[in-house]
Amino acid sequence: MAVGYQGLPELMPVAGVRLATVKAGIKKPDRRDLVLFELAPDTQCAAVFTQNRFCAAPVQVAKQHLSVGRPGYLLINTGYANAGTGERGLADAIACCTAVAEVAGCEPERVLPFSTGVIGEPLPVERIKAAVPALLAELSDTGWAAAAEGIMTTDTVPKAASRTLELGGQRVTLTGVSKGAGMIRPNMATMLSFVATDAAVAPELLDSALREAVAVSFNRITVDGDTSTNDALLLLATGRSGASVIDAENSDYRRFVAALTDICIELAQAIVRDGEGATKFIAVKVEGAETVAEAEQVAFTVAESPLVKTALFAADPNWGRILAAIGRAGVDDLAVERVRLYLDDLLIADKGGRVADYDESAAAERMAKEELTIGIRLERGSAEATVWTCDFSYDYVRINADYRT
Amino acid sequence: MAVGYQGLPELMPVAGVRLATVKAGIKKPDRRDLVLFELAPDTQCAAVFTQNRFCAAPVQVAKQHLSVGRPGYLLINTGYANAGTGERGLADAIACCTAVAEVAGCEPERVLPFSTGVIGEPLPVERIKAAVPALLAELSDTGWAAAAEGIMTTDTVPKAASRTLELGGQRVTLTGVSKGAGMIRPNMATMLSFVATDAAVAPELLDSALREAVAVSFNRITVDGDTSTNDALLLLATGRSGASVIDAENSDYRRFVAALTDICIELAQAIVRDGEGATKFIAVKVEGAETVAEAEQVAFTVAESPLVKTALFAADPNWGRILAAIGRAGVDDLAVERVRLYLDDLLIADKGGRVADYDESAAAERMAKEELTIGIRLERGSAEATVWTCDFSYDYVRINADYRT
Repeated sequence: MAVGYQGLPELMPVAGVRLATVKAGIKKPDRRDLVLFELAPDTQCAAVFTQNRFCAAPVQVAKQHLSVGRPGYLLINTGYANAGTGERGLADAIACCTAVAEVAGCEPERVLPFSTGVIGEPLPVERIKAAVPALLAELSDTGWAAAAEGIMTTDTVPKAASRTLELGGQRVTLTGVSKGAGMIRPNMATMLSFVATDAAVAPELLDSALREAVAVSFNRITVDGDTSTNDALLLLATGRSGASVIDAENSDYRRFVAALTDICIELAQAIVRDGEGATKFIAVKVEGAETVAEAEQVAFTVAESPLVKTALFAADPNWGRILAAIGRAGVDDLAVERVRLYLDDLLIADKGGRVADYDESAAAERMAKEELTIGIRLERGSAEATVWTCDFSYDYVRINADYRT
Repeated sequence: MAVGYQGLPELMPVAGVRLATVKAGIKKPDRRDLVLFELAPDTQCAAVFTQNRFCAAPVQVAKQHLSVGRPGYLLINTGYANAGTGERGLADAIACCTAVAEVAGCEPERVLPFSTGVIGEPLPVERIKAAVPALLAELSDTGWAAAAEGIMTTDTVPKAASRTLELGGQRVTLTGVSKGAGMIRPNMATMLSFVATDAAVAPELLDSALREAVAVSFNRITVDGDTSTNDALLLLATGRSGASVIDAENSDYRRFVAALTDICIELAQAIVRDGEGATKFIAVKVEGAETVAEAEQVAFTVAESPLVKTALFAADPNWGRILAAIGRAGVDDLAVERVRLYLDDLLIADKGGRVADYDESAAAERMAKEELTIGIRLERGSAEATVWTCDFSYDYVRINADYRT
């Protein structure tokens, strides 16, 4: 069960978005595995996708369709990722879009496909096509929780969040879902995540808002350092709230970005809390770096060290492994005698070694907590970054050794 | 037990080198944990050390002593790494050198200290000092196997190798020992390894020979991607074989480098075969890269992917994870449709997906082997690199979660 999971929060409908989730029998019988989003006409869409060179067929098709015009439908299947599937994979992704377009009565280019699951095996297109009429028949504006379940793979819990804010006297809603537990080290994107709002935002500002939010949310998480072939994050703005269009970087834009960043952090953290085998949720906060990139580099090196992650699993204050990870993070002129290391509020190491009054039992108490901040102060500048990660347990090995069986 | 381990090979003495290994009670009672090398006068020494910024106190002291003159003694303890120990760590390392120097009757600067074990806890200097007289009394030229055992930490087997070659009609010997099983991703060095030869080699050529050999041996292995704070590799040339001095890059030099590279590869591979929790020994061979650096980058990304390593543990031919790792390896203009992926001799994927006649059972048979080569052809150029690694098992988590208890 995900660390700190309290059940799904209340998910507010977003005017202009309807959803449906059905059982298509894609990989496992009797589970809801196919999701459709229907978007009101003129919905603006901003998107970021994986930087993996082996990007999946649906990612390629979605990018191409986005270049043609505004999407009317998003079709998402779990079970198979349709990645590493060559030419056939592209044809399969397009066939799924065409199946939706035929029933919905729109152009295939208005449908964006998304897939998640096993890499390298072909998509069961016929089963997906057969389920499309039922999908369109079940569309409703209250389908968010079911959609959050429908896109899960090795996730143990669904992930979704909602926010509201006032813009020009109108209440605006943001609601989003995300999935992902392994192959998590997003690079300019994440595993699958879809966030919708009824705010009206000019296209270029919607895009910059998404990039601002992603930089400090989905691009700051790691489970295993493996960037997926299928990462995609979509931000959909239907404009149906009645609030006026945000068309300048004014205070409304800043407040919208703040709310979007907030929901993206919650959705991204939910992925880490449900990281494969996770028993702990860890923030690695690096301060006093010369640049944000340097702070991120140190934080990710610590967050991805298998030795640090297994020590966290064991609740063993083996902080020497954290120092070793900082030392190999590529900061060539690091003055190690100035580095300070904290577990939550407890100063553990400075001047190149443990503090004079080091107390192993106090350190062990911090390490035993289910949620912990590893604080690292480099004393080189004023830049900082926080990366969220989880520990490395027997269950990580079990889940990934058994994944396809 | 290490993958493919056949017991220690015959270890030939090296004229000019004597060794001793005793029980000093450093961390565990009743184990041989302290090793001394005695080197004949005028022995040349070439060395490479960790690039980790938190480099251990003994590494700092050894570098400083090497800058002063030729070493006469190497003192190696297991149990504690004397890293992350600040100013006290430096004083402790020097105190150990002084203890040897006093009994041996030499300058402290002629003693090089090496430590391996837990990071961050202080060295029990008094126990080490107390054992020094016994060490000096036990020196013998047949002490190689005992030394290989004396430097172990989480190693399950000792690691050592010997080679001989003829140089100018004289038989020359190379014998070396190494240790290491976790925190293995050497960067210009390795965990502890000591190789000695009775060849006579001019200092600058000994240094270049070592760097050539390391680049394709110790710098091509990874267990967990974590670069240690204590990595050190020493090459000691006593010149006692009677062969004439190698003082130019002639055919004798090339043959010496070839033999040195060969022994370094065997010692480096021995570390991977005994990688923490390893059940498989894997070569990741990347061909057709634009540069060697590019080939290494792709090979290390695959070799360090937790998802690839757990699939190898499960003997699951989940080759999509290998493609995903190749795709995130940072080769921005990679033409994925040209990449070919092999398991040993078996072509698995090309043209962006699995081959037309893909046979899951044949792939599973390759994945089940105890030793396997993952072949990756990028078709971009003619550079290649092979990286050796192991799989990721439950025992890796167990060993590292329990390490200090």
